[in-house]
Amino acid sequence: MPRSTRSGPRKKGDETGRDRIGTPRFWLYGVHPVREALGNPDRSKYRLVVTQNALNRLGECVSSSGLDPEIVSPRSVPVRFESGTSHQGCALLVDPLPRRKLDRHLFENRRDQPILAVFLDRVTDPMNTGAILRTASIFGADAVVAPARHSAKESGALAKAASGALDRIPYLRVPNLANSMISASDAGTTIIGLDGSATTDLDELVASIDTASSIAVTFGSEGKGLRKRTRDCCHFMARIGRGGATGSLNVSTSVAITLYAIRTRQGLF
Amino acid sequence: MPRSTRSGPRKKGDETGRDRIGTPRFWLYGVHPVREALGNPDRSKYRLVVTQNALNRLGECVSSSGLDPEIVSPRSVPVRFESGTSHQGCALLVDPLPRRKLDRHLFENRRDQPILAVFLDRVTDPMNTGAILRTASIFGADAVVAPARHSAKESGALAKAASGALDRIPYLRVPNLANSMISASDAGTTIIGLDGSATTDLDELVASIDTASSIAVTFGSEGKGLRKRTRDCCHFMARIGRGGATGSLNVSTSVAITLYAIRTRQGLF
Repeated sequence: MPRSTRSGPRKKGDETGRDRIGTPRFWLYGVHPVREALGNPDRSKYRLVVTQNALNRLGECVSSSGLDPEIVSPRSVPVRFESGTSHQGCALLVDPLPRRKLDRHLFENRRDQPILAVFLDRVTDPMNTGAILRTASIFGADAVVAPARHSAKESGALAKAASGALDRIPYLRVPNLANSMISASDAGTTIIGLDGSATTDLDELVASIDTASSIAVTFGSEGKGLRKRTRDCCHFMARIGRGGATGSLNVSTSVAITLYAIRTRQGLF
Repeated sequence: MPRSTRSGPRKKGDETGRDRIGTPRFWLYGVHPVREALGNPDRSKYRLVVTQNALNRLGECVSSSGLDPEIVSPRSVPVRFESGTSHQGCALLVDPLPRRKLDRHLFENRRDQPILAVFLDRVTDPMNTGAILRTASIFGADAVVAPARHSAKESGALAKAASGALDRIPYLRVPNLANSMISASDAGTTIIGLDGSATTDLDELVASIDTASSIAVTFGSEGKGLRKRTRDCCHFMARIGRGGATGSLNVSTSVAITLYAIRTRQGLF
């Protein structure tokens, strides 16, 4: 893995300029995100800046990555401190993962096996999206799908909240979410939308559907909820809580509860 | 409500000195936390600094609070910007809520009605604790109980993550968590500990216990889990996920899933 030349002065925390095709490189930080990215052959990596302590914690994955670690003092780790997070003494300069097409990845290769996917309709907060990737990975979901525009892009904060899951579960950003939902539906996937205004409780819905088939669950952003076209692409709508409290639950909390309900019913978790 | 005199230069973001009994005042920020605190008669409030926009959003609760709002430009709102959060143009200088005793509040007055409580064993992260308060409030839990030491104290970041729930649900910090668990047990509460090393699945456990009685659920910090004495105070241990994945779920996610499982079984959500 070649080391890049430095790309000018650092601005805006974790962005360090753009590579030749206009893709912004960014710093991953934290032990879990850095370890997972070092072990991910699809991830282009350029610089690893670590404290001696962090290097010891990262262990084998550093040498097998082929990168030459730059050992620094804790204050020299090149990421902005963000509240509630810590770089834990390591930062890795990377490209976003290469784009993969939803359909081929998620459906054409997996028709023999039911899938579980999460669609996110304009969830723009990187902490929420990262938390959703983390939870989706733990529940063995196959992908998190979001529109290319109006959704959280890969970033250090997102990867930190995902605790390594950004390099474990596909985060697919598609040109048009509704079209992707239609493709999923055409491939036999049952699509459930979560919305506080629905009249069916999640647990009742999950008890009534065929959980042996592929399932996609769909969530809107807090406050705004699902757009009309997104809602129209859902086969079923469900709410979490009879009081219609879904709108007040954090979106990553709603995703976790929904995946738990499905996996428990499937006997797969 | 008298306005305080200013208490010296501001340090460390949202702390603005200590009142005469050594309690640190702090700034609440964000529309939801400020609105709930303005409406909470138990909350001592000193200064309300708002933009004109935020004043319009806050509406009636400002005039009924008796505070004289200080209208400023957005850049003059006196809280440090924290990543992933926004002050939304309003900040309220407050004291922490007065301490209440766990036993009287939670058990002596409520013996006729089953309670649902959350015990947190050394969860120090304010974002996690805030998210837990938010979720616990939505699920109608009666209190979140944590040790006075080694747990997140009231702060602007905690209140923001709680989205107003800090002023809706009691966050009780007790001298000794194990003693409080014993008191709860003596009052007839079933205490469940969540731990990735448990051999019983949460859904199986919830199906097997009497969910018409009072229940307390207990969670440790991520990584460290429950301390031995805390574990010894639990009647039952359960895990979320057969793969023992609890250790990898965010603690606020684990709380949400557990409360959902109990409330769904009780038919109360």
